[in-house]
Amino acid sequence: MLIVQKFGGSSLASIHHIQGVAKKIREGLEDGQQLVIVVSAMGDTTDDLVEKAYAVTAQPTPRELDALLATGEMQSAALLAMCLESEGIRAQSFTGAQAGLATTADYGRARILHIDPTPLRHALEHGTTPVVTGFQGVAPDHSIATLGRGGSDLTAIALAGALDADRCEIYSDVAGVFTADPRIIPSAVPLRTLSFDEMMELASQGAQVLQTQAVAYAKSHDVVIHARSTFSDSGGTIISNRTPGVKPAVTAVAINRHIAKVGLVGVPDAPGVAALLFSRLSQRGINVDLVFQALSHDHLNDIAFTVEDKDAAAAEEVARACLPDVNGRDVVVDRSVAKVSAVGSGMLGRPGVAAGVFQALAGAGINIQMIGTSEVKISCIVARDKAEHALRRIHQAFLLDEGQAVIED
Amino acid sequence: MLIVQKFGGSSLASIHHIQGVAKKIREGLEDGQQLVIVVSAMGDTTDDLVEKAYAVTAQPTPRELDALLATGEMQSAALLAMCLESEGIRAQSFTGAQAGLATTADYGRARILHIDPTPLRHALEHGTTPVVTGFQGVAPDHSIATLGRGGSDLTAIALAGALDADRCEIYSDVAGVFTADPRIIPSAVPLRTLSFDEMMELASQGAQVLQTQAVAYAKSHDVVIHARSTFSDSGGTIISNRTPGVKPAVTAVAINRHIAKVGLVGVPDAPGVAALLFSRLSQRGINVDLVFQALSHDHLNDIAFTVEDKDAAAAEEVARACLPDVNGRDVVVDRSVAKVSAVGSGMLGRPGVAAGVFQALAGAGINIQMIGTSEVKISCIVARDKAEHALRRIHQAFLLDEGQAVIED
Repeated sequence: MLIVQKFGGSSLASIHHIQGVAKKIREGLEDGQQLVIVVSAMGDTTDDLVEKAYAVTAQPTPRELDALLATGEMQSAALLAMCLESEGIRAQSFTGAQAGLATTADYGRARILHIDPTPLRHALEHGTTPVVTGFQGVAPDHSIATLGRGGSDLTAIALAGALDADRCEIYSDVAGVFTADPRIIPSAVPLRTLSFDEMMELASQGAQVLQTQAVAYAKSHDVVIHARSTFSDSGGTIISNRTPGVKPAVTAVAINRHIAKVGLVGVPDAPGVAALLFSRLSQRGINVDLVFQALSHDHLNDIAFTVEDKDAAAAEEVARACLPDVNGRDVVVDRSVAKVSAVGSGMLGRPGVAAGVFQALAGAGINIQMIGTSEVKISCIVARDKAEHALRRIHQAFLLDEGQAVIED
Repeated sequence: MLIVQKFGGSSLASIHHIQGVAKKIREGLEDGQQLVIVVSAMGDTTDDLVEKAYAVTAQPTPRELDALLATGEMQSAALLAMCLESEGIRAQSFTGAQAGLATTADYGRARILHIDPTPLRHALEHGTTPVVTGFQGVAPDHSIATLGRGGSDLTAIALAGALDADRCEIYSDVAGVFTADPRIIPSAVPLRTLSFDEMMELASQGAQVLQTQAVAYAKSHDVVIHARSTFSDSGGTIISNRTPGVKPAVTAVAINRHIAKVGLVGVPDAPGVAALLFSRLSQRGINVDLVFQALSHDHLNDIAFTVEDKDAAAAEEVARACLPDVNGRDVVVDRSVAKVSAVGSGMLGRPGVAAGVFQALAGAGINIQMIGTSEVKISCIVARDKAEHALRRIHQAFLLDEGQAVIED
């Protein structure tokens, strides 16, 4: 049994935490498992390094910022390896380059090009547990490149794929994936299983447990993920393609407050308006999430779309620049919105699920501003100050408080 | 004009210091120099990392300790490179591996095997100033290995040799090499020139400006060193083979308080006693400095030797274990001693110099416990509480207060 175990920053926040992780690793080895460990930087190390870089210059060179940030994981990997060795467990730290993880040179958001797992296999064959730095690889010119925030999940999953591991365990300070964020809905319950598609939707809809890109990689390489807590032995959540036969309509709900709504008001109803707007947004690298177009009585359209908070100013600028070209009247930006989503692979081919979500919100007097759907997700844009209430109502309506329930359609 | 510039930890103690170093580099570039920069870790970073490692375990795995410590220089190199770039100077950080510095796998005290300066030359050809991490290289198995404390000097000098640079400038918080430590003898004056041999003796006798091994490398590869201050523009000291024709007998004095004297008392005068003792000391990796053997009236010998403070306990253990084999009476360890040295390549073939040193101490009533000499050095072991006084007397006797004087012999 070969398992890749990834430990996040909160699991490695202090020397004491590192010793706790070493104990967990020992237990796995004593159970006869072969382990490859992937680590994030200790606690707030990455934030501290980012702060130093921005104290030097407002615009750090991306290559140098990556070279700087990568040292955080190098430190935690070396410290964990020496901790294991001090307990008589043969271990060795590996940087991304030493572990054979080749990436593009897109600093800060590099993509994995290729993994040569020979060095790790070699270590395992010699009874040595490799401790690999997450978040980083080596670019074609031997520079260090990082995969972006949360990239350690991706490192772990990608290594699990390359090593053909039995599963990838992602340890953090939460005991897996819940039907909702327990800080908002205390009655939320942990999910035993999730499909990749459900997890991807949850991750991109605001759940913080796993990074979307990492789950997508797991899906395409069929790597079973086990999300669990470093600090408790409770079961956690298995994310795989092997979900149970009877599926609930809604598996979990998620909330995302970090969005803004941008509206182009009073645009004459002519072809090409949306095309112009969205091609210019994409040229600026702005990701658009939901889109809504309403035809008003005087043949003027309103076009609204949502973006991440941080892109709102740039999106407004792009929209304003479009106004003369499309004869539009005005641009309005609304930062007081949030997105609540219901996710479940069981909603496939069940039209009653969407109605159930809308009814739950209507019953609470919550106005739905925009709607977005995918095969396994229904998202609603609502006023930010109503969002938690909306989330609770959906959670209740689909009986998630009492575990996974199947809606009759 | 190609120059390698090395900046020590005190020159990089804060973001503000890093910006000061960037300014100095800009001045050099504006003078038309091509520069390769070598950096130590910022301020106390290395000490902090060592402390973390020893919080994890009393015996850190040497490989992992090196992997950990190496991150200090990686951080300062990335920060300095991004600082230069923010000022419009093209720069790029290089780890030891990226700079082509291959070492042995003797973690913590690796030796340089080979330098392939192609990556640095390539950068220079493209108008990019390389910022190289000092203190580290890459072992044959791709592990990171460090050269030991002060190894950044060696990195800079070795790169200067490999690049055939015009000189290597070592920047620190002191304005070069002085006739004595100015903290002890305020009237000490800076030396404009020194030979490699003099500098090696001074470094190994306790002067902290440069690391002995680095100077030895400079001598064997004929790399001219310019030791100077980051914080002032005063001239500093040129260390080379090209010393002036007329040489003073004594160029500088040095003091080393970090030694201990170990004595084997009452050993019968028989052959092989010293051989046994010193071969066992060397098996334990203990470096012996001065040795003194005295024949007493009853045909019993006293054998005394000096070691570094940190080796005193181990040396005592070895000496005690020898006692039965050599029929010795006792072992005594004296930690209240210090070594004062007078160094100068001008003392070659001038027997009066040693006499001058002894007279200076005798005139001050200071007892000399042991004597050691080389072609360019006279060292005396004295009581530690008399050592500074001894240093001052020698400094005065050879007119060093007034600059470099030639003794008539």
